[in-house]
Amino acid sequence: MTGVNRGLDGVAVAETRLSMMDGEAGELTIGGFPVEELADNATFEETLHLLFYDRLPDAEELSEFRADLAARREVSEEVLAVLQRAADEEKPGMDALRVGAAAANLGTEDGDPESDALRVVATFPTIVAAYWRYREGNDPIAPDPDLGHAANYLYMLTGERPDESAVRGLETYLNAVVDHGLNASTFTARVVVSTESDVVSAATAAVGTLKGPLHGGAPGPVLDMLKDVHESGDPEAYVREKLDAGERLMGFGHRIYRVRDPRASVLSSAAEQFYDGDDDFFETIDDFEDVVVDLLSEYKPDRELATNVEFYTAALLYGVGVPQELFPATFGVSRVGGWMAHALEQLENNRLIRPESEYVGETNRSWTPLAER
Amino acid sequence: MTGVNRGLDGVAVAETRLSMMDGEAGELTIGGFPVEELADNATFEETLHLLFYDRLPDAEELSEFRADLAARREVSEEVLAVLQRAADEEKPGMDALRVGAAAANLGTEDGDPESDALRVVATFPTIVAAYWRYREGNDPIAPDPDLGHAANYLYMLTGERPDESAVRGLETYLNAVVDHGLNASTFTARVVVSTESDVVSAATAAVGTLKGPLHGGAPGPVLDMLKDVHESGDPEAYVREKLDAGERLMGFGHRIYRVRDPRASVLSSAAEQFYDGDDDFFETIDDFEDVVVDLLSEYKPDRELATNVEFYTAALLYGVGVPQELFPATFGVSRVGGWMAHALEQLENNRLIRPESEYVGETNRSWTPLAER
Repeated sequence: MTGVNRGLDGVAVAETRLSMMDGEAGELTIGGFPVEELADNATFEETLHLLFYDRLPDAEELSEFRADLAARREVSEEVLAVLQRAADEEKPGMDALRVGAAAANLGTEDGDPESDALRVVATFPTIVAAYWRYREGNDPIAPDPDLGHAANYLYMLTGERPDESAVRGLETYLNAVVDHGLNASTFTARVVVSTESDVVSAATAAVGTLKGPLHGGAPGPVLDMLKDVHESGDPEAYVREKLDAGERLMGFGHRIYRVRDPRASVLSSAAEQFYDGDDDFFETIDDFEDVVVDLLSEYKPDRELATNVEFYTAALLYGVGVPQELFPATFGVSRVGGWMAHALEQLENNRLIRPESEYVGETNRSWTPLAER
Repeated sequence: MTGVNRGLDGVAVAETRLSMMDGEAGELTIGGFPVEELADNATFEETLHLLFYDRLPDAEELSEFRADLAARREVSEEVLAVLQRAADEEKPGMDALRVGAAAANLGTEDGDPESDALRVVATFPTIVAAYWRYREGNDPIAPDPDLGHAANYLYMLTGERPDESAVRGLETYLNAVVDHGLNASTFTARVVVSTESDVVSAATAAVGTLKGPLHGGAPGPVLDMLKDVHESGDPEAYVREKLDAGERLMGFGHRIYRVRDPRASVLSSAAEQFYDGDDDFFETIDDFEDVVVDLLSEYKPDRELATNVEFYTAALLYGVGVPQELFPATFGVSRVGGWMAHALEQLENNRLIRPESEYVGETNRSWTPLAER
C-alpha cells in the first residue's frame, strides 16, 4: 500500500473561487459569502449568478438571468417517455435524473459551455418533477416561466402555486448545499471536463456519483429514523440500541467537519417554522440531535462526530413538502449549480486529470489455447 | 499554486490487478498478459472473463459466459426512441452512448454489481449500432445471440454476417484497448462507485469522460489526416506545414509512453491485412508514421513524442469497416470492459475518493440587497 492514497485525502487537485471549508472551525464560504449570509438572503438565481460570474447581479441582470434560465426548462418528448418508463418500473429518482441529465442536449443546438451549463441547471427540476408526477400516476406539469427556479420546482411537483414560506425554505436549502469544495460528485464533474468533454457529460457523471449512499443518500433514512424516534418517544433508548449494535447513525460525522456542520445550523433555523403547531416533531428532532451528540462522545470518545448537513436536510425538505423519495434528487437540483460552475472553472484553465495506479496483479502470463485449459 | 497537483500526476489512487504500463519500456500488461499476446489470441469474451475473474475461462465457462452476455444485449423501446432522436438531430455517437448507458437498467431488475456490470458491457454494442442504423435511415437490427460479442456488433451495424477476418480484427482492437491503468474515464468510474453508487452510473460517467478530445477523440481526425496525406502524396510537406504552423499532430505523444505505444504495434499488424491489393493506403500510413517521428524529433528535440494507440486505431477500424463517426463509441464498446472490472475492484475494497481544493476566491463578502446593487 506504500504510496497509494486511496481517498486522495489531503491532495489538492484544483484552485477554486467557488467555496471553502474550514473543518475545525465549522465554517463554509460560498462565492465569498459565509453560508449563513448567502443561504437566508439569496434567491437560487442570485446564488447561481454568484457562482457563474463571481458577483451578485443587479436588478436588470437578475431579471435577464431568470428569464434565460426559465427559457431553458423544457425537456423533449422522448426524454419524458424514458422518465415515465423509469417511474413505471419504480426506479429511484436518481436513476431518472441520470437518464434525463444524459439527454439534456436533445432538442437543442449545442452551444458554448456556459449556455449549455445554464440549460443543464434549468432542466433538473423539470426532470425530477416529471418523474415524480409519473410515479404518482399523474401527467407532468409544464414549467411556468413566470415562476422563479425554486417556486417552479414546487409547482411542477404539485400542480399548485407554492406559498412564499415553502419557496423561501427551499431556496435556503438550495443555496446552502449548492457547493462544497471538491466533494466526490463535484470532483467527478471536473475530471470529466478535464478531457475537454462537455458540461452535459459532466452533470450526468456527477448525478451518478451523488447517487451513492456515502454521498447524497442519507437524508431519506434520517427522516425514517426521526419518525421512528418520534413515535417511540425515547431517543436515548433508540440511540443506545443502535450504538450497542455497532450501527452508524445517519446524519452525524463528516470527512471534513470536526464540529457541527455550518449548514446544519442554517437548515435547522429554516426548518423550525414549518413545524409550528405541529405535534412537536421539531422538538423531537432538536432533542434527538442533543442525545446523539452526547452519546456519540460517550461511545466513541476518540472520534469527532458532529451533526452533518443531512440531518437537517431531512427536517427542512420534509417541512417544505418535498417527497422523501426525492431528497437525493433535490440535492442534485441544488448541487448541479456547483457542478456547472466547477466545470466552467476547470475548462478555463484545464489540465487532464489522470492519476496513477499501483499494479498488484500477475505478470508474464502466457497464452493457453482453450482446448488445453 | 503551491501544493496543487492539477493533473494528479504521479499520484497513485488505487491498487489494481487489471493492467500495468511501463512508459519507458513501452510495455503494457493486461490481466497478467503482455498486450501482444492477449490481443491476438483472445476473443473479447475471454478478455472480459480474464478482467472480471483474473483467469481465462475453460470451454464450459466460456460457453456459459458468452451465453450470459448474449442474453443481456437488449435495450428497451423507450431507449431506442431516444437514440433515434439523437440520430435524427445528428448528435455525436458518444452522446447516444451516454444516454443509452444512463438507461441501461430500464427493463431489468437491478441485480448485484457483477451481473449489472455484465449487462452494461453487453448493451454497449446494441446502443451504438441502433444509433448508427437510425443515422443511416435504417431500422435497428436485433442482436443475434448465436454470434459472439464482436461479430454481433458488426452484424448489428450492417445487417450482414461479418467475415472471419473482420471479426478477428475487431476482436484484436477490443482486446488491445480494453484497459489502461487509471486513464481519466476509468478513474471516473472508480470515483463514482467510491460513493457506493452503482455500476450503471459508473459506466455512464466514464462514457462522458471518454468523449473528450483529450481522451478518446483522435482516431477520427487521424483518419482524415491520413486520407489527406494519401491524396497529396507528400507526407513530409504535410507534416512540415503542420509543425511550422505550431499545430499538434494527432496520433503522436502520450502522457505515459516515452516510446512507441505497444498497442500501436499490435494494431498496426492487425490492420495491414485489410489493405492487401488496395491503393497503397497502408503504405502511406506506414511511411507517414516514419516521417512524423523523424520530424517530431527535429522540431521538438526535447519532447519524446512517439506513435500512440490512436494512430493505428484509425487504420484498423477503417480496415475492419467501422464507420469513422463511430470510432470513439467503438473505443467505449471496448473500454467499458475495463471500466466495469475497475468498478468491481473498487467496490471490493472501497474508500470514498474525495480530494481537496485550494481556495483562491474572495472572503467575508456581506450581503447587499438587490435595490442597492
